[in-house]
Amino acid sequence: MADLDLVIDRRQFARRQSVPAQRRLYQALRAAILDGRLQAGALLPASRVLAQDLGIARNTAIHAYEQLGAEGYVQTSRQGTVVAALGAAPERPARQAIEQATGPALSQRVAGRGRVRHPEDDLRPFMPGTPALDAFPFALWRQLLERAQRQASSQDLGYRHAVGEPELRQAIATHLRAARGVRCQADQVIVTDGTQHSLDLCAHLLADPGERVWMEHPGYGGARTAFAAAGLVPVPITVDAEGQQAMESLWHTQAPRLVYATPSHQYPLGSVLTLPRRLALMEQARRHGAWILEDDYDSEFRHDGPPLAAMQGLVDDAPVVYLGTFSKSMFPGLRLGFIVMPAALADRAVAVVGELVRQGRVAEQRALATFIHEGHFARHLRRMRRLYAARQQALRESLSRHWPLDGAVLGGQGGMHLVLSLPADHPDAEVAERAWALGLSPRPLSSYGTPGGAAGFNGLVMGYAHVPQAAVDGHVQTLVDALR
Amino acid sequence: MADLDLVIDRRQFARRQSVPAQRRLYQALRAAILDGRLQAGALLPASRVLAQDLGIARNTAIHAYEQLGAEGYVQTSRQGTVVAALGAAPERPARQAIEQATGPALSQRVAGRGRVRHPEDDLRPFMPGTPALDAFPFALWRQLLERAQRQASSQDLGYRHAVGEPELRQAIATHLRAARGVRCQADQVIVTDGTQHSLDLCAHLLADPGERVWMEHPGYGGARTAFAAAGLVPVPITVDAEGQQAMESLWHTQAPRLVYATPSHQYPLGSVLTLPRRLALMEQARRHGAWILEDDYDSEFRHDGPPLAAMQGLVDDAPVVYLGTFSKSMFPGLRLGFIVMPAALADRAVAVVGELVRQGRVAEQRALATFIHEGHFARHLRRMRRLYAARQQALRESLSRHWPLDGAVLGGQGGMHLVLSLPADHPDAEVAERAWALGLSPRPLSSYGTPGGAAGFNGLVMGYAHVPQAAVDGHVQTLVDALR
Repeated sequence: MADLDLVIDRRQFARRQSVPAQRRLYQALRAAILDGRLQAGALLPASRVLAQDLGIARNTAIHAYEQLGAEGYVQTSRQGTVVAALGAAPERPARQAIEQATGPALSQRVAGRGRVRHPEDDLRPFMPGTPALDAFPFALWRQLLERAQRQASSQDLGYRHAVGEPELRQAIATHLRAARGVRCQADQVIVTDGTQHSLDLCAHLLADPGERVWMEHPGYGGARTAFAAAGLVPVPITVDAEGQQAMESLWHTQAPRLVYATPSHQYPLGSVLTLPRRLALMEQARRHGAWILEDDYDSEFRHDGPPLAAMQGLVDDAPVVYLGTFSKSMFPGLRLGFIVMPAALADRAVAVVGELVRQGRVAEQRALATFIHEGHFARHLRRMRRLYAARQQALRESLSRHWPLDGAVLGGQGGMHLVLSLPADHPDAEVAERAWALGLSPRPLSSYGTPGGAAGFNGLVMGYAHVPQAAVDGHVQTLVDALR
Repeated sequence: MADLDLVIDRRQFARRQSVPAQRRLYQALRAAILDGRLQAGALLPASRVLAQDLGIARNTAIHAYEQLGAEGYVQTSRQGTVVAALGAAPERPARQAIEQATGPALSQRVAGRGRVRHPEDDLRPFMPGTPALDAFPFALWRQLLERAQRQASSQDLGYRHAVGEPELRQAIATHLRAARGVRCQADQVIVTDGTQHSLDLCAHLLADPGERVWMEHPGYGGARTAFAAAGLVPVPITVDAEGQQAMESLWHTQAPRLVYATPSHQYPLGSVLTLPRRLALMEQARRHGAWILEDDYDSEFRHDGPPLAAMQGLVDDAPVVYLGTFSKSMFPGLRLGFIVMPAALADRAVAVVGELVRQGRVAEQRALATFIHEGHFARHLRRMRRLYAARQQALRESLSRHWPLDGAVLGGQGGMHLVLSLPADHPDAEVAERAWALGLSPRPLSSYGTPGGAAGFNGLVMGYAHVPQAAVDGHVQTLVDALR
């Protein structure tokens, strides 16, 4: 007798209530027959047993068997319903076969993806990337926003400049020149809906399907996703204490079209790309017609001394596209980020974005321009820098008090997260899963790996920016519990 | 002596001020040598002459020549600087050669694209797709928005549900069931940043590169753009008075993965897809595992009688993904639209979107949910339906009074635009260009063609929703002037 547990995922079966039970049952059995979990000759449970087991009407089970019989997948013998011997199936595209077996499928390019996120997840202690939302000057922001809304005319309700409102592009350029040493004018700035949107646009504007993109390993998964969607081929570049380690020889064997880089504070390991490596990378990129995408995601939060200057500003006409976001420096829900295009590409890129993108949201953009222009932004950054430094310090001290294992703490010149390395007998995915069950959300370092990169990264990426100092000790002790 | 006019585009040379003159000159000359405009043995102007001609320092010209010499592109003879005989160039990708010659280029997939849009453009008379912005209850909207902002907590500043706030998904589902006959629950609704975002997500979620998408011909260019970016192959399907004319045989020779359709009010021709065609299309789509993307962009503005029910609701489990937008029913700058996924795909699609998309903007979403829930949305739609009917009528009457040419007026059951067909001796692109110069913005019908589709569409797509009745006569007379 076929083991029903192997054939039907009861949880999934129970969940798909929108599909009639008969169809779900038919699909599940057909899938199991087609993919070989049910072999020819296998005896299926009696319809009564099946119905009882799944909590469905007996007629439903009978009709599902009848449909399978009519289509030749099962036949009735003296013993009961048995799986028929299938002839060679006619050739057809793989997905069509899968779909006929299991119901409609999503595209192959998103196969295996899927993670339902809840807003509360981001607020859990140690979730990387969440800023201190309660320290944001929300009342002031609301005031600027309401003022911008009241000043907007009905004409401002239409589509807006695809690359952003002029006053916001200007404010961003001015800020970046002063704070990050970026060499740019407002007409190089393209306002986007955030870094995912920026990466998506860059991948489409600058590279064609099949071209290579160098990815830091370990590195930012959101970038991998965007590049994969654009059809690019990732090449893992291992990160060490001096940042990404782009071997000279690789330029000849695996020359990229794009190089994704977080030079000021590597994500997630925290190393700073050294000056010699920066210069060599830019020189080679220029020589090979590649573009470096400098994702300067959190460098404004360098705790000791002034922030490092951006790579983009190191030399004239650097082959660098500079990306920034307000998700961390303001708040994630704002959904505003930006691209600074190289001067040589800016006009054309702006024109193409004008055709591809529809932009609106004039009040948010103008309010943000005012927030920057009136100095609130710089002031908020200064306050957060101090706050995050104190919170990082608290986490370090708490770890040194309570953490029972050997393990380096990496990535500590600034930012919003630390990496705690784990010994090999504590696999990070398991620790993170147990921590999740206890209400914490550190991320396993191994999940940042670029496919094809060397294995061996084992640790926890721990966001601290939203974790008050007074609460750190308790959370670290909980994390110790997660080691078992 | 080489003719400098053939070698260097002076206007372009003068414009690219961000690139040092020496590099610009070097690039221009190298490009001319590589693409054969300058042949081996051609004598280049003396550096002094060149410098004078281009308005640059003589040293700049000398250094450019030196660089070209060092790289073997030119050599010095008794006559002066002459182009060297180049050996067979080492093989390299085409783009790299182009770029080395002309400076950096964007990707091939966006080649030829690019159109700078100004917000004012959308406000010009006869621009298709612009709603009556001044008729939107802006003060009420602002009030709801401010209320939502005041009620938001600092936690609401984080990332939000990738598929939209629950109350908005619920409000959309309730509205669609009542107003459009769509069969859906809130958990099938995915809130997006507008139709471009919806199309982009659908193309990636439902189809893989190289798969076919059937496009209406003529049809919506924004859909073509999104599908092209996702690597899909368009197949033009001619539209007649009964909507898109999908031949039975095409399902065997060019079976699609996706079918893009505007069944309630074909864009731009205005025909309604007949019931027999709807049923046949769905039946075939189901049989071939294809999905119909029903873009219901403006059907809420049907002027005579109640809006036609959506195709999605015609049968149970229709193989239809339903797309809608608030850009026309509310205002474009809001940047909110939605996808209704088929029930069988909803869970997986929601999970994948959760990984691909970052969503925020909680106040806008909650304010919109309230706007719908409290009945303001339905009331606004009713008012706009009457207003747009009156404006269409005014345009028809004005055309019948003033238009001097023969030509049918198409697409008149509702919506926000009409199509005025033109005789062949008045090419629409030319008429539209002259109209643009006179301050009007009708769009040439020929620009809606899907590549590969039959030629012969000649007319003007004229948006009237934002054109007050009192102004119509004047604008139509201006349009007559544009005929010359």
